[in-house]
Amino acid sequence: MLNIGVIGYGYWGPNIVRNLNAIEGARVVAVCDRDQGALKRLSGAYKQLKICSQSDEILNDTTIDIVAVVTPVCTHFELAKKALENGKHVFVEKPFTSSSAQAVELIELAEKKNLKIMVDHTFIFTGAVRKIKDLLAQGELGDIYYYDSVRVNLGLFQHDVNVVWDLAPHDFSIMRYLINEKPLALSAWGRSHINKLEDIAYVTVHFGSSKLAHFSLNWLSPVKVRTTLIGGEKKMLVWNDVNPDEKIKIYDKGVEVKNAQGIYDLLVSYRSGDMWAPKVQQTEALKLECQHFIQCIEQDSTPLNDGVVGLEVVQMLEACNESIKNGGRMVQIGSDVLSVTG
Amino acid sequence: MLNIGVIGYGYWGPNIVRNLNAIEGARVVAVCDRDQGALKRLSGAYKQLKICSQSDEILNDTTIDIVAVVTPVCTHFELAKKALENGKHVFVEKPFTSSSAQAVELIELAEKKNLKIMVDHTFIFTGAVRKIKDLLAQGELGDIYYYDSVRVNLGLFQHDVNVVWDLAPHDFSIMRYLINEKPLALSAWGRSHINKLEDIAYVTVHFGSSKLAHFSLNWLSPVKVRTTLIGGEKKMLVWNDVNPDEKIKIYDKGVEVKNAQGIYDLLVSYRSGDMWAPKVQQTEALKLECQHFIQCIEQDSTPLNDGVVGLEVVQMLEACNESIKNGGRMVQIGSDVLSVTG
Amino acid sequence: MLNIGVIGYGYWGPNIVRNLNAIEGARVVAVCDRDQGALKRLSGAYKQLKICSQSDEILNDTTIDIVAVVTPVCTHFELAKKALENGKHVFVEKPFTSSSAQAVELIELAEKKNLKIMVDHTFIFTGAVRKIKDLLAQGELGDIYYYDSVRVNLGLFQHDVNVVWDLAPHDFSIMRYLINEKPLALSAWGRSHINKLEDIAYVTVHFGSSKLAHFSLNWLSPVKVRTTLIGGEKKMLVWNDVNPDEKIKIYDKGVEVKNAQGIYDLLVSYRSGDMWAPKVQQTEALKLECQHFIQCIEQDSTPLNDGVVGLEVVQMLEACNESIKNGGRMVQIGSDVLSVTG
Amino acid sequence: MLNIGVIGYGYWGPNIVRNLNAIEGARVVAVCDRDQGALKRLSGAYKQLKICSQSDEILNDTTIDIVAVVTPVCTHFELAKKALENGKHVFVEKPFTSSSAQAVELIELAEKKNLKIMVDHTFIFTGAVRKIKDLLAQGELGDIYYYDSVRVNLGLFQHDVNVVWDLAPHDFSIMRYLINEKPLALSAWGRSHINKLEDIAYVTVHFGSSKLAHFSLNWLSPVKVRTTLIGGEKKMLVWNDVNPDEKIKIYDKGVEVKNAQGIYDLLVSYRSGDMWAPKVQQTEALKLECQHFIQCIEQDSTPLNDGVVGLEVVQMLEACNESIKNGGRMVQIGSDVLSVTG
Repeated sequence: MLNIGVIGYGYWGPNIVRNLNAIEGARVVAVCDRDQGALKRLSGAYKQLKICSQSDEILNDTTIDIVAVVTPVCTHFELAKKALENGKHVFVEKPFTSSSAQAVELIELAEKKNLKIMVDHTFIFTGAVRKIKDLLAQGELGDIYYYDSVRVNLGLFQHDVNVVWDLAPHDFSIMRYLINEKPLALSAWGRSHINKLEDIAYVTVHFGSSKLAHFSLNWLSPVKVRTTLIGGEKKMLVWNDVNPDEKIKIYDKGVEVKNAQGIYDLLVSYRSGDMWAPKVQQTEALKLECQHFIQCIEQDSTPLNDGVVGLEVVQMLEACNESIKNGGRMVQIGSDVLSVTG
Repeated sequence: MLNIGVIGYGYWGPNIVRNLNAIEGARVVAVCDRDQGALKRLSGAYKQLKICSQSDEILNDTTIDIVAVVTPVCTHFELAKKALENGKHVFVEKPFTSSSAQAVELIELAEKKNLKIMVDHTFIFTGAVRKIKDLLAQGELGDIYYYDSVRVNLGLFQHDVNVVWDLAPHDFSIMRYLINEKPLALSAWGRSHINKLEDIAYVTVHFGSSKLAHFSLNWLSPVKVRTTLIGGEKKMLVWNDVNPDEKIKIYDKGVEVKNAQGIYDLLVSYRSGDMWAPKVQQTEALKLECQHFIQCIEQDSTPLNDGVVGLEVVQMLEACNESIKNGGRMVQIGSDVLSVTG
Repeated sequence: MLNIGVIGYGYWGPNIVRNLNAIEGARVVAVCDRDQGALKRLSGAYKQLKICSQSDEILNDTTIDIVAVVTPVCTHFELAKKALENGKHVFVEKPFTSSSAQAVELIELAEKKNLKIMVDHTFIFTGAVRKIKDLLAQGELGDIYYYDSVRVNLGLFQHDVNVVWDLAPHDFSIMRYLINEKPLALSAWGRSHINKLEDIAYVTVHFGSSKLAHFSLNWLSPVKVRTTLIGGEKKMLVWNDVNPDEKIKIYDKGVEVKNAQGIYDLLVSYRSGDMWAPKVQQTEALKLECQHFIQCIEQDSTPLNDGVVGLEVVQMLEACNESIKNGGRMVQIGSDVLSVTG
Repeated sequence: MLNIGVIGYGYWGPNIVRNLNAIEGARVVAVCDRDQGALKRLSGAYKQLKICSQSDEILNDTTIDIVAVVTPVCTHFELAKKALENGKHVFVEKPFTSSSAQAVELIELAEKKNLKIMVDHTFIFTGAVRKIKDLLAQGELGDIYYYDSVRVNLGLFQHDVNVVWDLAPHDFSIMRYLINEKPLALSAWGRSHINKLEDIAYVTVHFGSSKLAHFSLNWLSPVKVRTTLIGGEKKMLVWNDVNPDEKIKIYDKGVEVKNAQGIYDLLVSYRSGDMWAPKVQQTEALKLECQHFIQCIEQDSTPLNDGVVGLEVVQMLEACNESIKNGGRMVQIGSDVLSVTG
């Protein structure tokens, strides 16, 4: 039986506790939060649970095997580091750390101590993303032309990070999972209107090929949009995550160049066929993710969303901030630490 | 009675002829096209119409007062120039010309000859755009934070220009009409997959303020999207042009910073109120545009979409191509010809 | 070459003339309408066309082989009868006649004279209905459980018939084409609010089986709905005619009773699989219908939508009126004339 | 402090317990269910709660003030009766009882004992229904022409009642709350395909006026539809309960008869104006309903959804079954017990 301690019981914490607690072979034994309201919500909900307000009570508890860090980004590094030093596996909320240097340090520490890190990139465990992964793996779309992601809505404003660090970890981790090609560089534009943090941003990601990825991120949209278009040589896919019933649609549409004798005689023909919306598994993603983590610990295997994946996402986030600061200049992704991740 | 000659009877030509012909005080007297199929479609449709295959038969016809140039972009300059030289007003399909230098030359020529130029930016005559213009003019949205436009679908590929020159003239002319601030610079990213012309592009437009405009342009999308979000300080607007009944929705939503004692105490509050979809006039935009042109000629007034507006759009298109070629580098808009347009 | 005369050039007439005129082997030679405005719209549009205001000029014209009757319902019988008596094939706007007795008389007359009747049930020539017909014929849905049709919008009010006679001819003819089982009886409810004609109605149609068909018809709906659900034993289908891109969706969904040991132990299981939206042909339905009619005349074959089909629809409409008058009482369909149609 | 005992912890029970428990001045002290799985789910979730498998342990517990009956319909009467006899207020799941006679008996018993009955018609406490009620009360729509409700989806099959008794209690209670006119009679059609219980039904409800209400109920629909149209003399309203953001839309659309000199000269004009989607309160309906019940007990006032309302809904359900059995014959609503409810 693996004993879990959870640090942070704010917006996302209750989901983490509920799901980790439901896994066979593991149980949440302690939860801490500095906020009295959070602790009050917690009391009564679970029996036989140590409730505390100091993280050290969890980090120093020798009966605890796993620490889940569900706190603001700026605290991830310190808490995760202490947990690893004390011999505990760590589950860290996204984004992994405030900098890639911190991420590298945690990865190296975990490796040395033979401990597991899992970064909470929940989306890659959703039925929709796993179905898209299957379709791409089967070559259903052919070569990928572009990946176009829109994630916009009104709030929820994070107070310590900008819209890129708040929303893009989802999309960057999904893209990294789906697209088998390493992004090399990116350009990002951002603007802040309400306070100093960017509340709207656009990111263009470049590969070593004609593939292009683009991300629209916005905290000031009156409507909630969660749409990803993936254009392929053979077929095209639309993933609309706010559609409860038909999240994924695959279009048998395409373009064919029949004849290219000079641009005026160019015969571009359009293929327009059926559309198909595959059934998507409804199992709660966080449940699958928690199970995966416990399994990786039990079987000493590497999580899909380990520290290295977390690092790669942080590298992209860092590149975004760098590019925004420099008026959209193209920035290499993770250039400084390539030696480490290689 | 103003006599009109139309050069080009391809995809858009029939609409031009039908609408120009229906205006009181004007009539189409001649149409030319090099394609026999086009001419055949034309014969029978209108009585008392000169049908010809050479543009000179129209350009040199002294009974003709106005020439409509509805041909591929690369021919606009030559045809419009000859028409102006021969003392005719010109109506030119969008985009105005292949280069801003050409546009400047035509504007100067028209000015010297006291002739009118209208560039066919039809969209600014749609009920939706005119309604949005009214709302913005009344200050309904407050200060504009961002302008986010998506215009994507599968084809129609232009064989002589890329996706930016094909689709963005609509959006650039609409934005210029709606937003009372001159765009200063832009960055653009594009990729080509089918032939050498870019089939997907993203454009970020910068102003002298925190305002940001962004354009997503794509010939390879399985779904047709025509959506513009305008985020304002007071309200936000969504214009969905493929929605037949509720094209414009205004959201009484917003963000307010109540208290800013350090980022952790920041109280960002969200206002979420009613939504309102005003009725939009259904009159065919092209009809209103044609009427406006005839009226401007009769009353010697300047068209809303005159050569200068056409030039500004071409300057933005040129900047896009320049930026795409240079890997997204920020490019000043119209820097070379600012003296002319100033 | 078959010569066609068209009586009536109101709302639908121009489409009839345009499509009949485009068929090889046929041409419209004369059009009549009592309204001067209609005749004015007509002049100029077509060359070499006799334009007249009296139907007799067409009915008595010996060079005319086919008469298209595109006038209000109450005039169909008289005009079609005269046309048949004068040896002309007739194309009649829907609904066929004002009564089944009239329809029977026309059918008998046409049979005697060896002439063709086609009733303009355009919808059965649409790509959507033909695709659904194919799917049903292939047994894709299994046994049909129900047919549920909604056709509602604001206006267009007919001044001479109620909402059932205006809208239901579409749905009744579509259902008759798709469902291989003769409806036996129906109940209908209607209410009038604006004038004496019912502006809202519901019709329930009964078969000799557990199949049920239901029709919702409404001239007073703020939104336009054109949706038909067909529930089958194996799959279910939704036809949404106002969706431009995905008119037909087939759901691999169903219900299975696994075990039925008393109602409390009943195990009803739900199957929920993929959804599939087949490509639908875009060819204009009226064009295909006109071609079909000309072909039936040339080859002496029976139109899909001949007078008998027209009669069956009129019988249903009559039953609706009878049921509405009697407070929803169930009314046998076509009981009076079963001997004729048998 | 009011002590509550809950009988039944199946699908809906957990929501009842959670909401009743959260009200100030009340607490759930005991829950019973015959199913061991339900009891297991319950244990651990709440502290200081008596968990039992026999309803008598709750019904006979003298410390309990209120009993919530959250069991299958056929058990409501017996359990509620015993609770009332033992001096407890009762909250009963919808539909109230299996027959109007049972409902009348419970109402009389409660009156005699001066106890409260609340029937769980949750929907009338939703933000959407309360907003519509406000709009109708303000006369925003003018006279109501029709009320058209569609509630269809695949399952959830009830094993003891048909689709009408499962789904229509929602719609009947909503209509009764919104429309200030007593329904007099109804006709209903139903068909069963999977087992002996009707799985699809249509109900037409008649008033003493030209108003008409219609209900479409279906357990075999591939798509989930929850839409109510309310057509009024002045405006029209669409309530789409599956739209998360714009549940209610009010259309400034209408019909006006300008001139009625014979049906051919009838000038029906359509008014088409703005659409407006008011903000709808998001508070959980069940929470408000539970608060309302506790308040009614504390203040000795009559619940909005008391036993009489529950009876009226049961009378409509009974009339449906009667009409379905008799092939859609029109059935008076509540004729047998009018003396009681008067």
